[in-house]
Amino acid sequence: MFALDLIIKKRNGMKLTREEINFFVDGYTKGEIPDYQASAFLMAVFFNGMDTDETLWLTEAMLHSGDIVDLSCIPGIKVDKHSTGGVGDKTTLVIAPIVASCGVPVAKMSGRGLGHTGGTIDKLESIPGFRTSLSREEFVTNVKEIGIAVAGQTENLVPADKKMYALRDVTGTVENLSLIAASIMSKKLASGSDAIVLDVKVGSGAFMKTIGEAEKLARLMVDIGRGAGRKTVALITDMDRPLGNNIGNALEVSEAVDILNGKGPDDLREVCLELAANMLFVAGKGDIESCRRLAAGAIEKRTALKKLVEMVIRQGGDPKAIEDTAELPKARFKAEWKAETAGYIEKMHAEKLGYASLILGAGRKNKDDVIDHSAGIELVKKPSDKVERGETLAFLHTSDENRIPEALSVLETAVSISSIPVQAQPLILGRIE
Amino acid sequence: MFALDLIIKKRNGMKLTREEINFFVDGYTKGEIPDYQASAFLMAVFFNGMDTDETLWLTEAMLHSGDIVDLSCIPGIKVDKHSTGGVGDKTTLVIAPIVASCGVPVAKMSGRGLGHTGGTIDKLESIPGFRTSLSREEFVTNVKEIGIAVAGQTENLVPADKKMYALRDVTGTVENLSLIAASIMSKKLASGSDAIVLDVKVGSGAFMKTIGEAEKLARLMVDIGRGAGRKTVALITDMDRPLGNNIGNALEVSEAVDILNGKGPDDLREVCLELAANMLFVAGKGDIESCRRLAAGAIEKRTALKKLVEMVIRQGGDPKAIEDTAELPKARFKAEWKAETAGYIEKMHAEKLGYASLILGAGRKNKDDVIDHSAGIELVKKPSDKVERGETLAFLHTSDENRIPEALSVLETAVSISSIPVQAQPLILGRIE
Repeated sequence: MFALDLIIKKRNGMKLTREEINFFVDGYTKGEIPDYQASAFLMAVFFNGMDTDETLWLTEAMLHSGDIVDLSCIPGIKVDKHSTGGVGDKTTLVIAPIVASCGVPVAKMSGRGLGHTGGTIDKLESIPGFRTSLSREEFVTNVKEIGIAVAGQTENLVPADKKMYALRDVTGTVENLSLIAASIMSKKLASGSDAIVLDVKVGSGAFMKTIGEAEKLARLMVDIGRGAGRKTVALITDMDRPLGNNIGNALEVSEAVDILNGKGPDDLREVCLELAANMLFVAGKGDIESCRRLAAGAIEKRTALKKLVEMVIRQGGDPKAIEDTAELPKARFKAEWKAETAGYIEKMHAEKLGYASLILGAGRKNKDDVIDHSAGIELVKKPSDKVERGETLAFLHTSDENRIPEALSVLETAVSISSIPVQAQPLILGRIE
Repeated sequence: MFALDLIIKKRNGMKLTREEINFFVDGYTKGEIPDYQASAFLMAVFFNGMDTDETLWLTEAMLHSGDIVDLSCIPGIKVDKHSTGGVGDKTTLVIAPIVASCGVPVAKMSGRGLGHTGGTIDKLESIPGFRTSLSREEFVTNVKEIGIAVAGQTENLVPADKKMYALRDVTGTVENLSLIAASIMSKKLASGSDAIVLDVKVGSGAFMKTIGEAEKLARLMVDIGRGAGRKTVALITDMDRPLGNNIGNALEVSEAVDILNGKGPDDLREVCLELAANMLFVAGKGDIESCRRLAAGAIEKRTALKKLVEMVIRQGGDPKAIEDTAELPKARFKAEWKAETAGYIEKMHAEKLGYASLILGAGRKNKDDVIDHSAGIELVKKPSDKVERGETLAFLHTSDENRIPEALSVLETAVSISSIPVQAQPLILGRIE
């Protein structure tokens, strides 16, 4: 078999076999197929696509390129969750404790954020002392003993994806549903859980800009999950506005704790409860209605909050920062973003809010940038809210006062205010299983 | 400017600017843009194409990547010719002397063959002593003094093409009209002639398999030539059967000399006269009819033959091999290919004849293979000819007797014989200016 033949076959619009896809992934991961052939192949895939079979084979070939976490020693159906990412998306911090407190083991490996805001790992690291680098043994032991662990990905998890993603990033081959789905699902499968809930975000702050695209990606990932023998459900949720009011690492931990305390913003609670209910559902905890009640009960009874405290202690973090979120890192400077006109907020451009948050220090422009855990944006107003001229739209938090003017100038372009009332859009846009 | 942005722009089907194309070609040639980005870019071009403007800009950017031959010290309109290549295509050996003997300077740089049969340079090297490596000065001096030189390409002619072609060859990005046209035309423009005649071959033995494709390529190259200020004409000629009867280096020199002696096969003579007439036409030697008469006269009066002898002497070759072609290298072994059934030859698959010829030693499988100049195939029958069962279709020439069975087994699949008479197809299929 030759890489050139596979490039030409895909270029000519033909379906590849499982053996051919294995040959490509294996050869590329080992360095036997050079980058220049891999990038031509990926561009041919960009144009001619892969069908569900090919995408499943690609996912499985990538999955087997490295280590696979073995959770079989843990009793019960282990559930994982993945979000395609968005601005203010702190759902893992809320959902993982809810699900674990209902007796379903959660073994979650997360990434760091590259782009606008920090990833789940960055958010957790704003809790003083919290360790996200766990050995494989510690990770499995924690899940076994307390039913929950959230940690960074270990080094040799899906090396094929690391290498292919780095190449796609510099060759214009990121935006292909099969390549996106295989990248996400190979990591989910390698993490060893038995069932998976996917949160596919759609809108201005998400990778998928239309519901049609999001549905296709969700369908493909659910099919891959099932093809690999995992019960998989996907929700399609709105990311046209930020989720919740807080953007930035410590600010998001604080808001997640609010939700677990029965407070916090309604939009975040709604999405978290629906995701948690679906995780309980795929774990076999009953029909979706009773799973919704289970999830809501875990908040009401504060069992989820207790589970979060338990995880924080187990992973070296200071529980006081959860018990009283005023103990979380605080920014030295706080500024106001004010409305320039009166009216109804029609739109808050999530991606621009994320970018403003990055300017304030909450994200990384480059892989090696250091995150300011205290930085970010605290929204006071959200889409459909009424505002007066000069009223505060948000508070800006940062350790570097000089960054405030640039952040404000981005924010000015991030909001549109209408003179007539605006209706809030639904948050849950679809469910695919 | 970033290479990634150009990849994405072309991937999204947008037209590139001249500056962007210059940036890409320049950056890739200098090694500032890595192979993996270049191959993704080329694959995006494969799918989304380039329009005539972009292809002209690409050609000119490639042209300026290296040296450009300066023929301005030679008086008159210098004419070059290029064939897209085919089996048994020895037209340069016939045409260049015809045109030069009519007073039009011919400065021709040719390539070696990689693939089925040798290139013009390999054919010329079958003449004992003939040197095809001329210095730039010697090349120009020869054209100036005797009106003709045929030599190998100098090292630094269009380095962008050398690098891009090598990459295209291993990344499935060869078969794109813009990339093919820019590759050919950048070399033609760098060779310094004022006018260009293109022979675009079409059929089973050619790169272009359909007349429609061949016409598109011809139109694109003529437009590029004109865009670069060179008078350019393209003929579309048949390569569904081999041109002439002989395939193989010394065998083809011998046949070319036959034509210049007023003998040789009709099909070869017809194509050579039409190409030569067009070269004289673009050099301003009159209307196409009078140019045809001029070309025919150069054969009749043997002035073209004398010009070939003059060139051979000037480039160190033994003129006796031209005066008596029995002096050319002779193969040790000669075998017969016989018809298995009686009837009319419907088709002789040119590419397969070329491959059989390669097996006998006439071509290179790999770049470093040594050519057997004496090897090849001498057809006795051609399409539309009547044959009896057991009658000789061709003689096989080789220095390695062991290669004959394999060559014969390829040849068996190369001919189809019909029970009803077959009409010969026209040779000249179109003309584009």
